[in-house]
Amino acid sequence: MAGPLTGIKVLSFGRVLAGPFAAMMLADLGADVIKIEDRKKGDMARNNGPFIEDISSYFLSVNRGKKSMSMDLRHEKAKEIIKKLIQKMDILVENFRPGIMKKMGLEYTAVKKLNPHIIYLSISGFGQHGPYSHKPAFDMVAQGMGGTVSITGEPNRPPVRVGYSIGDMGAALFAVSATLAALYERERSGEGQHIDVAMLDGQVALCENACARYFATGEVPEPIGSRHPIITPFQVFPTQTDEMVVIAFGHGEWEKLCSVIGREDLIADERFKTVADRTGNHALLEPILCEVFQTRPRNEWLSIFERAGLISSPVNNIEQVVKDPHVRAREMIIEVEHPRLGRLNLVGTPMKFSRTPCQIKMTAPDLGEHNDEILKKELNLSMADIEELRKDRVI
Amino acid sequence: MAGPLTGIKVLSFGRVLAGPFAAMMLADLGADVIKIEDRKKGDMARNNGPFIEDISSYFLSVNRGKKSMSMDLRHEKAKEIIKKLIQKMDILVENFRPGIMKKMGLEYTAVKKLNPHIIYLSISGFGQHGPYSHKPAFDMVAQGMGGTVSITGEPNRPPVRVGYSIGDMGAALFAVSATLAALYERERSGEGQHIDVAMLDGQVALCENACARYFATGEVPEPIGSRHPIITPFQVFPTQTDEMVVIAFGHGEWEKLCSVIGREDLIADERFKTVADRTGNHALLEPILCEVFQTRPRNEWLSIFERAGLISSPVNNIEQVVKDPHVRAREMIIEVEHPRLGRLNLVGTPMKFSRTPCQIKMTAPDLGEHNDEILKKELNLSMADIEELRKDRVI
Repeated sequence: MAGPLTGIKVLSFGRVLAGPFAAMMLADLGADVIKIEDRKKGDMARNNGPFIEDISSYFLSVNRGKKSMSMDLRHEKAKEIIKKLIQKMDILVENFRPGIMKKMGLEYTAVKKLNPHIIYLSISGFGQHGPYSHKPAFDMVAQGMGGTVSITGEPNRPPVRVGYSIGDMGAALFAVSATLAALYERERSGEGQHIDVAMLDGQVALCENACARYFATGEVPEPIGSRHPIITPFQVFPTQTDEMVVIAFGHGEWEKLCSVIGREDLIADERFKTVADRTGNHALLEPILCEVFQTRPRNEWLSIFERAGLISSPVNNIEQVVKDPHVRAREMIIEVEHPRLGRLNLVGTPMKFSRTPCQIKMTAPDLGEHNDEILKKELNLSMADIEELRKDRVI
Repeated sequence: MAGPLTGIKVLSFGRVLAGPFAAMMLADLGADVIKIEDRKKGDMARNNGPFIEDISSYFLSVNRGKKSMSMDLRHEKAKEIIKKLIQKMDILVENFRPGIMKKMGLEYTAVKKLNPHIIYLSISGFGQHGPYSHKPAFDMVAQGMGGTVSITGEPNRPPVRVGYSIGDMGAALFAVSATLAALYERERSGEGQHIDVAMLDGQVALCENACARYFATGEVPEPIGSRHPIITPFQVFPTQTDEMVVIAFGHGEWEKLCSVIGREDLIADERFKTVADRTGNHALLEPILCEVFQTRPRNEWLSIFERAGLISSPVNNIEQVVKDPHVRAREMIIEVEHPRLGRLNLVGTPMKFSRTPCQIKMTAPDLGEHNDEILKKELNLSMADIEELRKDRVI
């Protein structure tokens, strides 16, 4: 069986990350994705290093499984081709600043006239309406304005960023859910619609618990290192060797933890009785636990905790992640054949289906690699037509 | 119009975060969600503070729009009721450790016999198969083992956690996309299926760019503060007053930035010529920019950058986020009426539809609040039947 979106056609104007990540998820799920790129420059992410030979690893990572069509979108003939393609599509993805698609005559109201069934997904920094909607944004703006930076990092230290582009990818994830809900709804109504996802909104949504705590108490959440705001212990500790995560949530777990580390005395300690006590007194508890944990190597602790049924884990760097046998068994690191680079490693998809599994077969396309194929197959153009488009610098 | 999933029925065994967050998204999208909870204790998240009067703000935040049914799941009569309910459902959500649903006789193969059309979503720490699948996990394990902690934070400082539970929510977001893709596919095939999403897999997927850089270079990515791994400047800077995000990606933007800060000399500086040069020499560039930025208050800089068409933003804390006029205009902070607490603030949904908007009307339920309603409406039980179940401590 192929993926659950087999037969669904997607036209993607996505560039860099949020749009391409969403379109990649749709491709992973089995949709046919045509990526429209500027004829000369292509998706600007093609310039993002590091490079494997002359190919961007950044681009390779989020554009697998797509077909590339390169066009001069200012050219009238290119617009005609796009409009014909739109009539055959189920989903359109774009992540321009609001107004740019309109400049190309491709805003939702125009596209809807060509194809009332289309699900038109717009991802942007601030969304299609609201006082900041005209402003440009990259990931870090969403992380900074959405509250994420304010709750991530160590207390009283310089601000840090989430190490991956969750501003982009968070929006893309909400956007794919919304798009697929609309696709399902279309089966009932026969109608498409416009979906408007803002990167900023995505970060606010992910900050839900910090907001909930603020609403409940009026206290403004701050960064607290590797700790959890309401559960203690739930953080990274040093050991005699590497660092490890140790978690004890309920009272039973706390008792077990105290026992296996030989500190039964802590169980009755009034300062650490409930999870709220432990969180309130974390500054007293942390040094006690750190001292104990530094008496043994990490792997000894992990075995002890596992036998006790406690939750703990190593802290893996990226090399350890990609070599981890479980990560491999889950097919989260896959190999794809690239025509020039040979076998390439990519990250797999976490969306695992029992009956219609995702199949990631194709690597990311070269710029315009599928121009001829798409024009022939989707629009029935002849080789002569295509040559003319090439001569006129439309494609 | 109601949300796109109007008419879809969801039975959720979710507890704490990943399952409830996924089920909340489905409820936001218009589905009817029945939350099954333990008769005595309920979802353990009900104990998570801070509390508004006696109600958990944590629970309120991710359980709005659901109906609560409380049962003793070890009781045979409860299992019968669940089995009857399952026959009426489109989607089942659970985030137990693999094996727990089987202990209750509710694993996918058993549920499928009762309802072959059901989409059965399992979210777990490590997934349904693989060497670690039996292990328990909370958010921090996924963040620690999945690489997230290793790339977040300052260089050569203690590890930090992403300030929200992206281990749970990341998995939930991939899971909702997968579930809705399966729901769409069911329209074609008439068949349900089992979806298996692991929190660890979700983090590996979000670390795609760090993995791509590792595959390309063999270098293990490290935490780099608020900087971006391949774009410079793309980070937080101090000013005379508050901190701000400043981004200059392309060459044109870099020239503009140098001009408006009165440092045209930097444009020709070989050390900072390309984005790769600036990233490689960030340790030289940062002090130069910090010195300039500290000569003016933040808002002056933001105006200057906005006029120049450059990308910049404030760094907002949670109070500033929830009071922001744009966040308000986007309905990312909403009010919902709670029967006892009155008007409550909640975070809205970033999934904005033109034709079938999400409607968040109901607050989170009390434990077992909808027992009678569900038993009457879904299973046609009489008040006498329901009283008996109550007497027998089934509900």
